[in-house]
Amino acid sequence: MRVLVVNSNTSEAITQSIAAVATAAASSGTIILPRTAEYGPRYISSRAEATVAALATVEAIAAAGDQVDAAVIAAFVDPGLAACRELFSFPIVGVAEAAMITSLFYGGRFAIVTTGPRVVPVFEDLAATYGVAGRLAAIEAIEDRDIDPAGHPDHAADALAAVGARCIERHFAEVIVLGGAPLAGLRDRVQARLPVPVLDGVSCGVRMAEALVGLKIPKARAGSYAHPGRRAMVGLSEPLAALFERAP
Amino acid sequence: MRVLVVNSNTSEAITQSIAAVATAAASSGTIILPRTAEYGPRYISSRAEATVAALATVEAIAAAGDQVDAAVIAAFVDPGLAACRELFSFPIVGVAEAAMITSLFYGGRFAIVTTGPRVVPVFEDLAATYGVAGRLAAIEAIEDRDIDPAGHPDHAADALAAVGARCIERHFAEVIVLGGAPLAGLRDRVQARLPVPVLDGVSCGVRMAEALVGLKIPKARAGSYAHPGRRAMVGLSEPLAALFERAP
Amino acid sequence: MRVLVVNSNTSEAITQSIAAVATAAASSGTIILPRTAEYGPRYISSRAEATVAALATVEAIAAAGDQVDAAVIAAFVDPGLAACRELFSFPIVGVAEAAMITSLFYGGRFAIVTTGPRVVPVFEDLAATYGVAGRLAAIEAIEDRDIDPAGHPDHAADALAAVGARCIERHFAEVIVLGGAPLAGLRDRVQARLPVPVLDGVSCGVRMAEALVGLKIPKARAGSYAHPGRRAMVGLSEPLAALFERAP
Amino acid sequence: MRVLVVNSNTSEAITQSIAAVATAAASSGTIILPRTAEYGPRYISSRAEATVAALATVEAIAAAGDQVDAAVIAAFVDPGLAACRELFSFPIVGVAEAAMITSLFYGGRFAIVTTGPRVVPVFEDLAATYGVAGRLAAIEAIEDRDIDPAGHPDHAADALAAVGARCIERHFAEVIVLGGAPLAGLRDRVQARLPVPVLDGVSCGVRMAEALVGLKIPKARAGSYAHPGRRAMVGLSEPLAALFERAP
Amino acid sequence: MRVLVVNSNTSEAITQSIAAVATAAASSGTIILPRTAEYGPRYISSRAEATVAALATVEAIAAAGDQVDAAVIAAFVDPGLAACRELFSFPIVGVAEAAMITSLFYGGRFAIVTTGPRVVPVFEDLAATYGVAGRLAAIEAIEDRDIDPAGHPDHAADALAAVGARCIERHFAEVIVLGGAPLAGLRDRVQARLPVPVLDGVSCGVRMAEALVGLKIPKARAGSYAHPGRRAMVGLSEPLAALFERAP
Amino acid sequence: MRVLVVNSNTSEAITQSIAAVATAAASSGTIILPRTAEYGPRYISSRAEATVAALATVEAIAAAGDQVDAAVIAAFVDPGLAACRELFSFPIVGVAEAAMITSLFYGGRFAIVTTGPRVVPVFEDLAATYGVAGRLAAIEAIEDRDIDPAGHPDHAADALAAVGARCIERHFAEVIVLGGAPLAGLRDRVQARLPVPVLDGVSCGVRMAEALVGLKIPKARAGSYAHPGRRAMVGLSEPLAALFERAP
Repeated sequence: MRVLVVNSNTSEAITQSIAAVATAAASSGTIILPRTAEYGPRYISSRAEATVAALATVEAIAAAGDQVDAAVIAAFVDPGLAACRELFSFPIVGVAEAAMITSLFYGGRFAIVTTGPRVVPVFEDLAATYGVAGRLAAIEAIEDRDIDPAGHPDHAADALAAVGARCIERHFAEVIVLGGAPLAGLRDRVQARLPVPVLDGVSCGVRMAEALVGLKIPKARAGSYAHPGRRAMVGLSEPLAALFERAP
Repeated sequence: MRVLVVNSNTSEAITQSIAAVATAAASSGTIILPRTAEYGPRYISSRAEATVAALATVEAIAAAGDQVDAAVIAAFVDPGLAACRELFSFPIVGVAEAAMITSLFYGGRFAIVTTGPRVVPVFEDLAATYGVAGRLAAIEAIEDRDIDPAGHPDHAADALAAVGARCIERHFAEVIVLGGAPLAGLRDRVQARLPVPVLDGVSCGVRMAEALVGLKIPKARAGSYAHPGRRAMVGLSEPLAALFERAP
Repeated sequence: MRVLVVNSNTSEAITQSIAAVATAAASSGTIILPRTAEYGPRYISSRAEATVAALATVEAIAAAGDQVDAAVIAAFVDPGLAACRELFSFPIVGVAEAAMITSLFYGGRFAIVTTGPRVVPVFEDLAATYGVAGRLAAIEAIEDRDIDPAGHPDHAADALAAVGARCIERHFAEVIVLGGAPLAGLRDRVQARLPVPVLDGVSCGVRMAEALVGLKIPKARAGSYAHPGRRAMVGLSEPLAALFERAP
Repeated sequence: MRVLVVNSNTSEAITQSIAAVATAAASSGTIILPRTAEYGPRYISSRAEATVAALATVEAIAAAGDQVDAAVIAAFVDPGLAACRELFSFPIVGVAEAAMITSLFYGGRFAIVTTGPRVVPVFEDLAATYGVAGRLAAIEAIEDRDIDPAGHPDHAADALAAVGARCIERHFAEVIVLGGAPLAGLRDRVQARLPVPVLDGVSCGVRMAEALVGLKIPKARAGSYAHPGRRAMVGLSEPLAALFERAP
Repeated sequence: MRVLVVNSNTSEAITQSIAAVATAAASSGTIILPRTAEYGPRYISSRAEATVAALATVEAIAAAGDQVDAAVIAAFVDPGLAACRELFSFPIVGVAEAAMITSLFYGGRFAIVTTGPRVVPVFEDLAATYGVAGRLAAIEAIEDRDIDPAGHPDHAADALAAVGARCIERHFAEVIVLGGAPLAGLRDRVQARLPVPVLDGVSCGVRMAEALVGLKIPKARAGSYAHPGRRAMVGLSEPLAALFERAP
Repeated sequence: MRVLVVNSNTSEAITQSIAAVATAAASSGTIILPRTAEYGPRYISSRAEATVAALATVEAIAAAGDQVDAAVIAAFVDPGLAACRELFSFPIVGVAEAAMITSLFYGGRFAIVTTGPRVVPVFEDLAATYGVAGRLAAIEAIEDRDIDPAGHPDHAADALAAVGARCIERHFAEVIVLGGAPLAGLRDRVQARLPVPVLDGVSCGVRMAEALVGLKIPKARAGSYAHPGRRAMVGLSEPLAALFERAP
């Protein structure tokens, strides 16, 4: 099975760290194909950047061709997720979506711990969009935004575990979700510091993508997630235009 | 007051019809500046097209420069609304948002009547995103999708009023919202056929934009709708890159 | 355009302060007609007082006659709003309603800051009634209830801004609503102290009333907001009885 | 135990029918004290009439003096309920509230059957206000509004049972609530026609009032349902003014 | 009237304390029949124990025979409530359900105070199941779990009242519910310490059961709470099997 | 990987059909261990039966010992799910839960099609319990309850697809979930008849169980899903008692 993992950010270093987590999380028969968005933000932290990244993610998946069995969108705002779900015939999973939905299987409410207050309302909206807001206990950001997950992972894990512990104690969170693709590599460390399940979106995204591929469910041919059909478009790049010109 | 009205679709004919409605709806001192997206779908009817149109809308507003007092995004999925609200310092209003929110002032639940079943779940999600799902009575699509609002307006109004009447009778809708920017010109005709308020997003968008300009509220300098600040971006067009390079 | 602004409290001093805010907020062509309820509470701070004020508000608007284009109910529990919307043919806007609904256009969740804990549950119920509870981040009351908005406005603004700041930091409020008609005159001062939009109901009410008048939407002839029709009533004052005797 | 049953409508005939149901429903030791509002609508079917009836209901309970152990507000929009709960020290129960809340004990969702479409949105709002909207399956009105519960009870019961059956079949209602105080006398007849519990607000109101009296819970001295305290009021009738002048 | 009060815990001491509260709360004509579950947990504090207790409760009520008019399930997770409601023809009330639902009559939001954090999410789920989550202000647990309601009631009441006061101040709770059947005997003491109504499930359960008996509503013959009908079962005890073999 | 699949019904024929679906759905390295509950209902169709089956399911999983990596509870009301999640250290998945949660990855709202109206409210409650009620479009039951999935699968698939089509058209369902473990074997046939994804809980349950095992998340040591700890129990069977006597 070939699972495309698209870093919607344009930072290669983040792609490497995501790819490492994805590879470690994958089943033995799964090949992880990492890919970096060709344009857009270095690191998404606003809806404006996500709007750019959404289109870049669509293009990145289109550029990967049909030789993939599933794609994971690896930025914690899942840019372009709904568009990709309409346009491509293989399963598409976002890492925020995957982590939140997977958390439901552990029972109780989940909390998201993340690195800055600005994205808190954005993540709240995502939980509502995915229909799981009723299972969201809290979203909390660490105060020190300058953590360095790659360079000083223990320090970063300490900071995340501290707010995670607060979510458990004050908000009765029963699962902690790491809110940010670059945080995925810290899961084991944060888990070691907390008494409830800790989830990262990249691992959940890969395992959920594998499960969906295994279920062999055909793509919708009706409804709002069917391919939009041959649509007249103006001024698009060649491959993007091609996506909209396919007969459904 | 100068109100930019952006048609997020690339069809000039739709721009003309929207501009006519906007001009008719505006206060005497308001100048309507119509503008058409430079690339993207002829007419948005899927999330995939909306993803393209979102970026095209951001670019269209950026291209209009700072000589505007407010902007109305005139496509009924409000593409790029949140991104524009972050990036620009003047008020931004989407026509779907404007119609749904304005409906709240008439009391009771609103229904949306539209031209095809595919967008029904998309509009439902919008109502939830805007926080007004509890006031949404129903969304219903006419069966004959080939109505021609410009060419045969009475026939189109008949069709829309018929489903509107069903929303009133079965779902106790107390306001009817026309779900589609090209339908805005039919408001008077549909109103003449129905016993409850009928709203179009373009008129509501213009009047709400005027009201927001009049309130003179400064743009947020904190929170998730503040300007994202100087952000590193890769491969963007010049004006789009400039938007992200402004010091907040 | 003539906009009636009814102070549902019987305090003339409050009427004066509301009228000043309303006049400052109105468009150049708008004439503000202030009016004070003829009986009822000096200052509403309970549902019991609001029940009296509701009827007093209906009577005040009836007494103003048909020479108005819209009415704004200027007490932050919007007493009599639904009744007036049924009985009168011109647009009716409540200041609590106007502030909460206008806040939706700025994006994200709003918080209400107010002067005493007793009204907090009342305002919560209002937000639910208006269908915007999902966008309500928090309601917080200042501890010092003896602020004097007219006499010591800077001290009052300090107190309100302090709880507003707490709503921004702890509850991620992205808009602050001043919860109380007598607080409306403090908007500029509170705004100067906070980094997100600050709204007062009186200004929002006037601007929203103007927008609704501009939209020229006819009154509902069906549904629960239509005029109730000729209804037999017992023991009412002459003008109130007349309101119910109109043929719809 | 003395339970005041206030007909918020000014129709004596309705008072008689309500009193009969209340007396039949009461425990052996309970004395039912019927009372008719002294002014206001003959029969409430709009929010505007309910606004008048709310104040009339407060005055009716005040006029009954302190020689009662509880009061039931017997009009299906519960006019004045919240105000009375603040002002009086004995338990106050509304018949709509009582029927909806009692229905929760039978399991599953309840439906309300009533006599005209106009009140459907009003009853929906009530269910939301009482916090039980999630248990509301449907509200349906009979088509023939000219039923005569007193004169032709079997015909009326047939009509109500028919829409009740539709609620059971289509909306999986597990309890049927009769939406209207004048319908209370039809409960046995409607029950005989339907396979699920049928509730009328008057019987539920009386039994719930008895239960609350039995629990001997003191009135709140804090929060938004405490007595508002000595409040300055203008132009009120003597007894109404007295209610607001009591030291809390 | 004979009201069975089943202690779903197997502790006789708890049964005694519950019986004392139930007897004190009951009307003069009501006979309280206490009964202890024959197997299962000493004191339920997890869903796993509640699963055992659910079946033990069904069996305990079955063993009591048909000589009862109603049954109250007296453990604050209401084990087996829905099953019993299907199987028995007399009213069944759970104490958690009764306290939460009764609280609705006092207005505003209720809070639950309890003895350990583990049950907080369980009680939250119960409130959602009963459809009253929108009226739940907070659930708070005392820190000292080793309170001894029977032996040191004043100390226990102090601890509960302290968290209750916090719920009133921070979360605007307007009613306090004691979350735990063994806490029921502390109601008067906690009430003496708090300015809002304090409810215990046992008293509420008994009074609500009496009210339901008084209403004389027949058991559902359709829907999901009707008797499941003659169902083939394997390996059940004699009396339990008999319950499922009754023709509906 | 060894995945226990427990049929909570006591019918061996259903176990065989579930095992066949589970085996077909599993990854190549997964061994499916089918097991039938030792006591309880032949086929669960009420909450009362589910209450018995819940305990039987706990006992069945306990009897299987620790030689399993995960367990799937294969009855569409997921009897005993929460209890098992507390008691066992390996992942537990219910088939209703698995199907509903998996559906979230396909976008839009899901509908459940099932075989009788009685379980419709039960399934609605389950969706709410799992926090996904906002994504539930409808639950519809076929009229002919005497379908024979094993004997006449095409006829059964026709009936299920017919109501599924209605859910798609009327309620805009974008995924169809087969509501009943015995229906799982019909998935391919129903899928062939419908244009949107069709999910069965058994396949989803197995694939989700595999994914959870793959994620290697440790069991909660805190919160309401931790093992309840050594608890005093009375009158339990040996193995059940042992489950509660384990030190956590």
